[in-house]
Amino acid sequence: MVAGIIGATGYAGAELTRLLSGHPEVKKLVLSSVSFEGGRIEDVYPGFLGIITGDLLKAEDVINSSDVVFSALPHAVGEHFAAACMEKGVHYIDLSADFRFDDDEKVYAAWYGKNYQFPELHKKSVYGLPELNRQKIKELSVKPLVVGNPGCYPTGASLGVFPAVSKALGGSPLCDLASPIIINAVSGTSGGGREPSRSFHYSECADSIAPYKVASHRHSPEIARNISKMAEKALQVIFTPHLAPMNRGILSTIYIALREEWRIKAAMFPSKEMEDKTAEIRSLYENFYKDEPFVRVLPQGLFAATNRVRHSNYCDISVHIDLNGSTLIVTTAIDNMIKGAAGQAIQNMNILLGFNEKSGLEAIPMVF
Amino acid sequence: MVAGIIGATGYAGAELTRLLSGHPEVKKLVLSSVSFEGGRIEDVYPGFLGIITGDLLKAEDVINSSDVVFSALPHAVGEHFAAACMEKGVHYIDLSADFRFDDDEKVYAAWYGKNYQFPELHKKSVYGLPELNRQKIKELSVKPLVVGNPGCYPTGASLGVFPAVSKALGGSPLCDLASPIIINAVSGTSGGGREPSRSFHYSECADSIAPYKVASHRHSPEIARNISKMAEKALQVIFTPHLAPMNRGILSTIYIALREEWRIKAAMFPSKEMEDKTAEIRSLYENFYKDEPFVRVLPQGLFAATNRVRHSNYCDISVHIDLNGSTLIVTTAIDNMIKGAAGQAIQNMNILLGFNEKSGLEAIPMVF
Amino acid sequence: MVAGIIGATGYAGAELTRLLSGHPEVKKLVLSSVSFEGGRIEDVYPGFLGIITGDLLKAEDVINSSDVVFSALPHAVGEHFAAACMEKGVHYIDLSADFRFDDDEKVYAAWYGKNYQFPELHKKSVYGLPELNRQKIKELSVKPLVVGNPGCYPTGASLGVFPAVSKALGGSPLCDLASPIIINAVSGTSGGGREPSRSFHYSECADSIAPYKVASHRHSPEIARNISKMAEKALQVIFTPHLAPMNRGILSTIYIALREEWRIKAAMFPSKEMEDKTAEIRSLYENFYKDEPFVRVLPQGLFAATNRVRHSNYCDISVHIDLNGSTLIVTTAIDNMIKGAAGQAIQNMNILLGFNEKSGLEAIPMVF
Amino acid sequence: MVAGIIGATGYAGAELTRLLSGHPEVKKLVLSSVSFEGGRIEDVYPGFLGIITGDLLKAEDVINSSDVVFSALPHAVGEHFAAACMEKGVHYIDLSADFRFDDDEKVYAAWYGKNYQFPELHKKSVYGLPELNRQKIKELSVKPLVVGNPGCYPTGASLGVFPAVSKALGGSPLCDLASPIIINAVSGTSGGGREPSRSFHYSECADSIAPYKVASHRHSPEIARNISKMAEKALQVIFTPHLAPMNRGILSTIYIALREEWRIKAAMFPSKEMEDKTAEIRSLYENFYKDEPFVRVLPQGLFAATNRVRHSNYCDISVHIDLNGSTLIVTTAIDNMIKGAAGQAIQNMNILLGFNEKSGLEAIPMVF
Repeated sequence: MVAGIIGATGYAGAELTRLLSGHPEVKKLVLSSVSFEGGRIEDVYPGFLGIITGDLLKAEDVINSSDVVFSALPHAVGEHFAAACMEKGVHYIDLSADFRFDDDEKVYAAWYGKNYQFPELHKKSVYGLPELNRQKIKELSVKPLVVGNPGCYPTGASLGVFPAVSKALGGSPLCDLASPIIINAVSGTSGGGREPSRSFHYSECADSIAPYKVASHRHSPEIARNISKMAEKALQVIFTPHLAPMNRGILSTIYIALREEWRIKAAMFPSKEMEDKTAEIRSLYENFYKDEPFVRVLPQGLFAATNRVRHSNYCDISVHIDLNGSTLIVTTAIDNMIKGAAGQAIQNMNILLGFNEKSGLEAIPMVF
Repeated sequence: MVAGIIGATGYAGAELTRLLSGHPEVKKLVLSSVSFEGGRIEDVYPGFLGIITGDLLKAEDVINSSDVVFSALPHAVGEHFAAACMEKGVHYIDLSADFRFDDDEKVYAAWYGKNYQFPELHKKSVYGLPELNRQKIKELSVKPLVVGNPGCYPTGASLGVFPAVSKALGGSPLCDLASPIIINAVSGTSGGGREPSRSFHYSECADSIAPYKVASHRHSPEIARNISKMAEKALQVIFTPHLAPMNRGILSTIYIALREEWRIKAAMFPSKEMEDKTAEIRSLYENFYKDEPFVRVLPQGLFAATNRVRHSNYCDISVHIDLNGSTLIVTTAIDNMIKGAAGQAIQNMNILLGFNEKSGLEAIPMVF
Repeated sequence: MVAGIIGATGYAGAELTRLLSGHPEVKKLVLSSVSFEGGRIEDVYPGFLGIITGDLLKAEDVINSSDVVFSALPHAVGEHFAAACMEKGVHYIDLSADFRFDDDEKVYAAWYGKNYQFPELHKKSVYGLPELNRQKIKELSVKPLVVGNPGCYPTGASLGVFPAVSKALGGSPLCDLASPIIINAVSGTSGGGREPSRSFHYSECADSIAPYKVASHRHSPEIARNISKMAEKALQVIFTPHLAPMNRGILSTIYIALREEWRIKAAMFPSKEMEDKTAEIRSLYENFYKDEPFVRVLPQGLFAATNRVRHSNYCDISVHIDLNGSTLIVTTAIDNMIKGAAGQAIQNMNILLGFNEKSGLEAIPMVF
Repeated sequence: MVAGIIGATGYAGAELTRLLSGHPEVKKLVLSSVSFEGGRIEDVYPGFLGIITGDLLKAEDVINSSDVVFSALPHAVGEHFAAACMEKGVHYIDLSADFRFDDDEKVYAAWYGKNYQFPELHKKSVYGLPELNRQKIKELSVKPLVVGNPGCYPTGASLGVFPAVSKALGGSPLCDLASPIIINAVSGTSGGGREPSRSFHYSECADSIAPYKVASHRHSPEIARNISKMAEKALQVIFTPHLAPMNRGILSTIYIALREEWRIKAAMFPSKEMEDKTAEIRSLYENFYKDEPFVRVLPQGLFAATNRVRHSNYCDISVHIDLNGSTLIVTTAIDNMIKGAAGQAIQNMNILLGFNEKSGLEAIPMVF
């Protein structure tokens, strides 16, 4: 099977390149780059020297020679490549935001500043969060399919919230759906991409933490959309991103108001009741994700930590009840470049093509 | 004036040593250490070589030769030093948690596992957060006084919340006092002190972020206490601490439900109304802190960042309204070792002794 | 094939565990730990949860059920396990220093403070640096063999020096063998192991660089021994280790006096002659390593960088002539935990057992 | 006294701004910036908000209103400002390389690609390394003077070498002057300045170390020049710079061949003779620097470390003899932005104007 990557020299594209070159089903990789067209991938990423080498072609050449095409371009510039793939009959997995909003063009246009170029494509695309849409991806994959790969923050946030708002657990959801869900998230610097800028200049961001785009980050509507779909009800979300001095990882700390029947009485100090109720909720989370290959609900005593999922496709989740008894605190950790980007895209490919869902995604996280 | 430090070789003690040695009113510093008694401070901190040098004495010797005594001991071991100071007639500024709860022994005992040894001392002590208690510190300082210096997290959290719950602004507070206030805080590693442990082992905490003590950190009751005092009403607080790979700093991201009359309508996208209402709230914050020497309410477009207060006694604050229109998001940044510990203790000394409140605290933050 | 690890919970042991669990020829892994005997590996390394799980046995149980045994114990405590393996007829690959000095007990004893316990074992052991001893490892592997896996610093240093002192290139070596070879090396923190200590306490080593054990590090004699073997002549080495704030990696900057015939005349500024002569030497290095699967001689314009070999078994090498015309500067980069420890041990296993030398070592370095 | 800064918004300029605003003799600061002319310093450095505030003027306005002018411009663009200052009769302290080579225009032109614009200025300028030229600076300061402030690397390197090549110690120097002196130096990222670029992009340089400009860095001739002046003989220097993931600091590890009479016999293991001879050399270093306010020769057992001089104007030095008995290893640490740039410039101002040499430079280093 031949996999193609458009935009192979950005960070997400390079991670796709790295991971796909070790994928057991991928016999050949073809790469393209706008910025480095005519160059070679190992010149842009000298770490690949002698391992992954090859010419950087035009996007058209990639499309013409691939069985599946990944696109890791910036937002709002690559829709026509999706159209070309559909015409040629190959799956198109898009890591930009262009296909994350299905037919909701209004939200996309408001946040990304551009209308859909090929509106009909968006009616036939699918949002590629396997934990939400695996069945749909499988069913639709009989025809060439456009998959909108989720954003990094939305992945970590949604996975932490889903079990609390889902009806699937039977009975009423844990979450008081009338209250906004608060997502406080911290990302590593690779999320900012490969282009140098003041915000990611070592001397300006090392040894420091700061929020950015408070109340104005465009992953907000994507998160709201995901959890609303799971809840089958429009939910409100408050999302605050931060930048921390680390290369990889997103930690989301999520505050969910519990429904009346799930609350316990406030305690001055951690109590047995807190522990028992937390164990009950943890069981629900475990059950919700029991068949998921890449979600780990952590046992009591462990908190999500980005270095325990680094380089892997896992999402770790821990659940806690606050001392006030009325709020569920969920923490999730992902590697923003793997489960938050390239790894999830490959997971989608595996589902589309009927491969083992873990193929090519076996990297095991080490603490350092 | 002679200043004494008990526990001079821990991180907070060493910061006190460093800052006080440059304080224009301090003519002499006397130091003690349990762990290194008989040694010299420059052997423990070789960065002080040739600048700050001196024997590490017994605590008793420090008390006997000082005009004011700072104690940077662990919690629950130094109350008798406070008693000795009161007897001798010198001010005692305690950086441990021992005097942060006044006569509320029950809360202290629940969280710190020990009853008060000298209960009467706690009736005459004052909680040394100048922005809350400056007047009280001044008034009480005519007699020898025990000052309980605030915890690092409570400092950054309380300063972000005060204006929103205070009645002082006239009219009703910004905050819907019935809703819990959420404090999502991130600390640098120096908060963990000088003793090596797995959590602060470089290979285990570098390049990663994780929460710890979720729903069980003992700064929770201190924060709740502070903001309840300001609100003159018992408020609920949800506090989640995290550890980030940086030496210094605490960033607090605070979520406050707005009272009905302060809310605006939800917007799909950042709106003019959001900006205007935010400007109004920012003005209230500016007004609230207009006489504070160490609080900076940031202008529009800036977010609190720990590297912009590093090494200084400043607390930076930014205010924002969320897209849903009903939640105020406040971010605050302090240097955990300065405003969060040694600097604030010196600010308290300056108030106690009638010095210029900024004396010895003039360090200017540089971004790197 | 069953692989066993003694000392599986230290950093080197955990890296062996991680890498071997993905090795295509290893059907089963058995683990032991002195510190955590009776526990489980995923409790010590929660990143392994759901992926690598298993009981931590006694060392004896590991030896009895394995086809090859890796030992990642501290120095000078595990020799009897080697003896037990030889008796049982299984290969023993020792990551400690115990078998790095063959029959040169005097040097070992001087630096490691202990005599050999089983001197005869050391006569039959082999030093497992494949680039020096591959043939010997292959030949001896017909019988159970003790392999002394090289130290991290000696690996990066020796590979940078070998081509310059070898007679194999034909003609006289590049290096003026009468001058000491200077190795200035910088390591990441994982080299210090898993036990917390002041030197590796985040607040004490972050954002800083410092040398340690100047003129007294026990990798000095190992480096001298390696390059002397290659040169077939006793050479002098000056080795200075440093600690840098990074998790992984060793960078060695090596200064080698050129033999008269290789020198060029000094230039005020980089010259064409420098470039040409450097290209000539680079060719010699490339030729020397042309069959090595894990050594990359970098093209002109690239310098060795630890993030370009991170997580991989590669050693990157760049060569340069100094402006003075008489000194060759070689820089090498390895991942101290992979090529400098666990990866090289697996490379040795692959050679011993006739597997593809790259099996289990296919990780591709990404810059971040 | 009014101090002016040209180029106040680059990193060196901002450090000058920060330090001079706390200088007891500086009553007023006037700032200029090409990039941000017409803006305000606190907009460029929000950490200065409410502390250091002011308009960014034209360079001419700075020159016209200052008693001493600091220039922190890039190389080769500001010579005419020096000329203007000389005409106006104010001292000019240049932090660029333009006045570091006196009348040796050939070397300057070769490395900086430009001839002198005002050659006569270079005949009357002085190289501002106080430990080399204090007397000369003092003597010449009766007239307006151009001071060429040293480069960061040359400062740390030269201070480590001076005592070993000086004749001042009486008798023959320690150093075998026929052998090249090797300087292996590691810098933090602030040395790269404020402009974002790939090399200083967080994701590309964090958690990693690498050399750069091997055998081709333009601080090489400046170092060679300094130590040759001290030795009164043309010496050869080999200089290799590296970039480490830290904000501040330069560590230099220096290898100096000892003269025959200073050598000891090689030892297999650290010996008493090594220790004694090292103590003797350490005494010579201490003696050489006994009157220097900012050089600390470290006692036995300590190594130079950048976090022990961070934020200070100190240069720490440790001395060692290698096991081979013939090589002196010297390590030095400075803060590249203080002693390596802005601090040293202020030290020069203090000397020029007859202030206490430590004025404004009292910051005490803390390990974190």
